[in-house]
Amino acid sequence: MISPAAVTGSLNSNVPTAGPARPKNIIIMVGDGMGPAYTTAYRYYKDNPETEEVEQTVFDRLLVGMSSTYPASVSGYVTDSAASATALATGFKSYNGAISVDIEKRPLPTLMEKAKALGLATGVAVTSQVNHATPAAFLAHNESRSNYIDIAQAYLNTDADVILGGGQQYFSESLLAQFTAKGYQHLNEFSQLEAVTRPKVLGLFADVQLPWAINDKQGHKLSKMTQKAIELLSQNQQGFVLLVEGSLIDWAGHSNDIATAMAEMDEFAAAIEVVEQYVRESKDTLVVITADHNTGGLSVGANDKYEWHPDVLHKVKASPDEIATRAIASEQWQPLVAELMGFKPSETELTALDEARMQGNEPLTVALRQLIDVRSNTGWTSGGHTAVDVQVFSSGPGARLFGGHQDNTDIANKVLSLLPESATQQ
Amino acid sequence: MISPAAVTGSLNSNVPTAGPARPKNIIIMVGDGMGPAYTTAYRYYKDNPETEEVEQTVFDRLLVGMSSTYPASVSGYVTDSAASATALATGFKSYNGAISVDIEKRPLPTLMEKAKALGLATGVAVTSQVNHATPAAFLAHNESRSNYIDIAQAYLNTDADVILGGGQQYFSESLLAQFTAKGYQHLNEFSQLEAVTRPKVLGLFADVQLPWAINDKQGHKLSKMTQKAIELLSQNQQGFVLLVEGSLIDWAGHSNDIATAMAEMDEFAAAIEVVEQYVRESKDTLVVITADHNTGGLSVGANDKYEWHPDVLHKVKASPDEIATRAIASEQWQPLVAELMGFKPSETELTALDEARMQGNEPLTVALRQLIDVRSNTGWTSGGHTAVDVQVFSSGPGARLFGGHQDNTDIANKVLSLLPESATQQ
Ligand SMILES: [Zn+2]
Ligand SMILES: [Zn+2]
Repeated sequence: MISPAAVTGSLNSNVPTAGPARPKNIIIMVGDGMGPAYTTAYRYYKDNPETEEVEQTVFDRLLVGMSSTYPASVSGYVTDSAASATALATGFKSYNGAISVDIEKRPLPTLMEKAKALGLATGVAVTSQVNHATPAAFLAHNESRSNYIDIAQAYLNTDADVILGGGQQYFSESLLAQFTAKGYQHLNEFSQLEAVTRPKVLGLFADVQLPWAINDKQGHKLSKMTQKAIELLSQNQQGFVLLVEGSLIDWAGHSNDIATAMAEMDEFAAAIEVVEQYVRESKDTLVVITADHNTGGLSVGANDKYEWHPDVLHKVKASPDEIATRAIASEQWQPLVAELMGFKPSETELTALDEARMQGNEPLTVALRQLIDVRSNTGWTSGGHTAVDVQVFSSGPGARLFGGHQDNTDIANKVLSLLPESATQQ
Repeated sequence: MISPAAVTGSLNSNVPTAGPARPKNIIIMVGDGMGPAYTTAYRYYKDNPETEEVEQTVFDRLLVGMSSTYPASVSGYVTDSAASATALATGFKSYNGAISVDIEKRPLPTLMEKAKALGLATGVAVTSQVNHATPAAFLAHNESRSNYIDIAQAYLNTDADVILGGGQQYFSESLLAQFTAKGYQHLNEFSQLEAVTRPKVLGLFADVQLPWAINDKQGHKLSKMTQKAIELLSQNQQGFVLLVEGSLIDWAGHSNDIATAMAEMDEFAAAIEVVEQYVRESKDTLVVITADHNTGGLSVGANDKYEWHPDVLHKVKASPDEIATRAIASEQWQPLVAELMGFKPSETELTALDEARMQGNEPLTVALRQLIDVRSNTGWTSGGHTAVDVQVFSSGPGARLFGGHQDNTDIANKVLSLLPESATQQ
């Protein structure tokens, strides 16, 4: 156990060391799939080429340590999001696919349950469906992450104050009626969120996941959900625990789609900046940011060349899958692709794209991604996850606990040690 | 500048915080090419499969932060060893290929020069040739890392007390005579090292680089060189600065050779453990360990599979290039390969190996490496470097300065700030 006396100040010199030893509020932020190559790539993606220096990102400002992510030994060394979220939510290793159950499939007590028992408000704000693996492990228990309907149903009994993200298809009319009967405001449109002034709220803003950030003209939905979640949860005088996930970094990684991944990183970074600001002002809030694992075996530079060209990515105006859809629907696809990709493909490239276009949406999408990879010199080794350690970022009271190397279960145990010792009367 | 008052204690809870604010001795250790996937892979490579938990490595014990590695903007975002070593040795960014000269090719003052001017002893112990990029940037200045003969010649004027590694082919008889005239003991055989009891020493134990650790029956040469370097340099009462490099991690990475890379990691880790012990006992020594960049785009898991199998690597009894050489020389190559690879290749694999064997040593070497990659599920994206941030490990007085995110030039500037303010009389 970590003694509360050790919980003072923070590691980063730019983080204020004043404030209480224990945080009143705890915000956990997960960049799904966001291994070290993603935060590095993002720094160079955000670099202003007009200046000689490379500007720091919010990740650079907040880095304190790293974390191993391996699951229970039955699942080897490479984790999935469910086992890793279980570790982060409970402090226990489990098998890949587990939603806060142990390897015998028995429920493990979660951070959110403990927070609720102590009288704190709880919430989740994510860009995937709200019942996807990471938020699911914080709010529910299930032997399989694939049991989306069960997990959505289980959310009824979590008493969570804020549930924001996608996933309409998993919530039936009758289930939504039960949420409403429990006092939840149910939102279906993102534009409704701004007007909400009090918990509880169940906001489902897409059938499954939210739109890719690169395609989303409304912009920075995760930041807005995070801001609103804080506004609502902070009405609880005992404090709150909030989970925020940049879920779609992982999805872009699985697709080996660097342009889309960098836009999702930007979405997540913007949400972190919202939280960073709140931590600075509130003085009694701890934020801990990490990834559940790495996705895609991304490398910044590849193919024996000592180069990476983020300028290529900034010119891409839509996700490759969106560009493919539009290119297949259009007779004049070549100028359209040139316009949306931000460069005029060579004759050889056009021939390859033409062939892929004949084969349909997915082959054309893959061909467009590969074109971006070649021009930016980005590498990938997998459509799945890899085991490289991930970073840990933190600020606020208790932040220094997360310095150095740790396991993902240690992160949970440190966070749990920072909860109040018993429920206080308001 | 960093105020000396800030230089107290250390970040890791398991590192003693007693001892002086400024270190007397500074040991810089560079794992060439050792990005985060290497230290992660090494943890699972060293994991005892008989126990449920994954044992910590020396890297886990000493992790304090991370570092960006990008070169001067003229060279883009992906550094080579020369520019990165220049950053670590001088605190300035330069172009890829630069040996402690700026982008105008003017010499930059180095840590080793400043240490010498302050009366400290200096030394290098590496597994590459001693005049390879990393040690070269600490000891010399040259517009190109490829000017090996020039760099070897320049070492004459460094007054370095200990120079240990490979590189006989770059030191002519006449140059060696000049070293001897300056009071250097010149060693050609590794077995001569143990008997050396005082500086100065120039030990060149191989024509170019030292043998691969996986093939080296003498074992842990880098640990022995490190131990001897400390023993000799610590005779200087003012203190010392020592550079230790696990040079061949990078070489194995360039070859995408995971079995050889893990043995080199083990060699480097063993040398770190020698230093960790010295830091603990001497109480006035700072060690800072980092990598100059990542090599090969290594990923721990690949090909859409959530698996990594380090057991495969432990069974490999020689480097693939050595196995290829022996397999080409032998009529009975199939049982020999099975014996040295630690598994019996399938019929399909044997057919592929047979074809590669017909084509010669290099094709067979590549085929053997790929077989190991497939069976261990290891991924690579490049034969060159990639830009992912590297880790920083530290212990001893001043270690906490290296926590959080920093640039490789910051590492140098922090180390330089820890040197004595002026030369003291003995
Ligand atoms: Zn995933
Ligand atoms: Zn290299």
